[in-house]
This record gives sequence, structure tokens and C-alpha cells, in this order.
Amino acid sequence: MEKVIWITLLFDFYGQLLTERQQRFVDLYYGQDLSLGEIAEEYEVTRQAVHDTLKRAEKILYGYEEKLGLVEKFMSERKAIAEALDLLRVFRQDRSPDHLDRIEQILAEITELEAK
Amino acid sequence: MEKVIWITLLFDFYGQLLTERQQRFVDLYYGQDLSLGEIAEEYEVTRQAVHDTLKRAEKILYGYEEKLGLVEKFMSERKAIAEALDLLRVFRQDRSPDHLDRIEQILAEITELEAK
Repeated sequence: MEKVIWITLLFDFYGQLLTERQQRFVDLYYGQDLSLGEIAEEYEVTRQAVHDTLKRAEKILYGYEEKLGLVEKFMSERKAIAEALDLLRVFRQDRSPDHLDRIEQILAEITELEAK
Repeated sequence: MEKVIWITLLFDFYGQLLTERQQRFVDLYYGQDLSLGEIAEEYEVTRQAVHDTLKRAEKILYGYEEKLGLVEKFMSERKAIAEALDLLRVFRQDRSPDHLDRIEQILAEITELEAK
């Protein structure tokens, strides 16, 4: 997956565990696409300081995912739900009972997994 | 929700962020239903020490949920998926297109929410 998307996802899940400054820099850089130089200017720090803060923040986000794996878990579930949704739309066209079976299986697996 | 279930869910999500000792005590007490006294005996510490470790661990788990809210988010999604699954089973009986619409709406909402 593209790094920007991955960092954005990690930030969405674990961002609240970063310091306020780290959160701001990650948001400006990855969310609002400002350059290191632009952030440095706005916060009156060096470009290197912005870079270091971002690297530190990324390392923390990756660390949480390594321990908890919640983004990974959520991505596979989203994929499964998207598949069920696609199958439902196909079912509307062809009325194949196989599709209903598969949708039911997917949804049941998710609810069972999550109930563990 | 019953406290034990709630702690178990929090532990399932954020348990890896506790110390090894905290993890062991939470697992023994909430997961394997040992008493404070039994854990104290096994680890050769006072009952009070076990109690304090558990309280501390619970506070940390609650703190992560307060910041991240991932268990809450996951609970509402699970509820929605369970609803879709129920509707699918009803649809198999009555073939009402309304149920298909509702299932599609639920699944689309989840994939859209998560894609944000």
C-alpha cells in the first residue's frame, strides 16, 4: 500500500496517542500535503526539526500497529464487507442462491471472529 | 455492558500495551476466573498487590479506549453486520426486496465510514 495512505490509516487509528505537536505535523504533511519547508516556516523551526518530528511520529504509529495490528484487522474486514456488498449487487441481477450463501458466510465469519 | 465482558474486549484490543505482568494478571483474573487470592499465591505476592496491578491495568485499558474509541467503533460495526446477517436470513424466507435494500445500505455505510 502507498505509504501516505498507510500513514493516514495508522494516524486515524492511533493518532490520539501522539503529542499534540506530532499530530499537527502529521496532519499538515500527510493530510493537507504541506511541504517540510512550509511547516517549518509556519512553526518557526528548522526543516530538519519538522522531518525529525514526523519520523518520530511515524515510528510511534508503526510501533502501535506492530503491537496491536488493529489497522490490519480492520482492512481485512473492510475487504470482506466490500466483497459481500459486491455479491449482493450481483445477486440483484442474477438471483443466484450461491451468492446469498457466500454473503451469509462472509457476514457470519465476521461476527464470529469479532465475538471471540 | 457487564464489566467483565467490557474489560475482556478492552484487553483483546489493547492488551499488548500492558506490561507482561499486567497482561498475566488480567488474563488469570478476567479470562480464567482465578481469584485475587489464587493469583497472589501463585505469584507469591500479597492479595493487595494483585488488586493494585489489576486496577492499574484496567485504568490503562480504559485510558486507551477513551483516547482511541476503537472498541466502541468495532461494537457498533459488529451490531450493524449482525443486523445485516439477520435480514439476509429473513430475506431467504420472505424474499422482500426491502430487506435487500436495507442490507445493501448497511454494508455500504460500513465500507464508506471505514474508507474515510
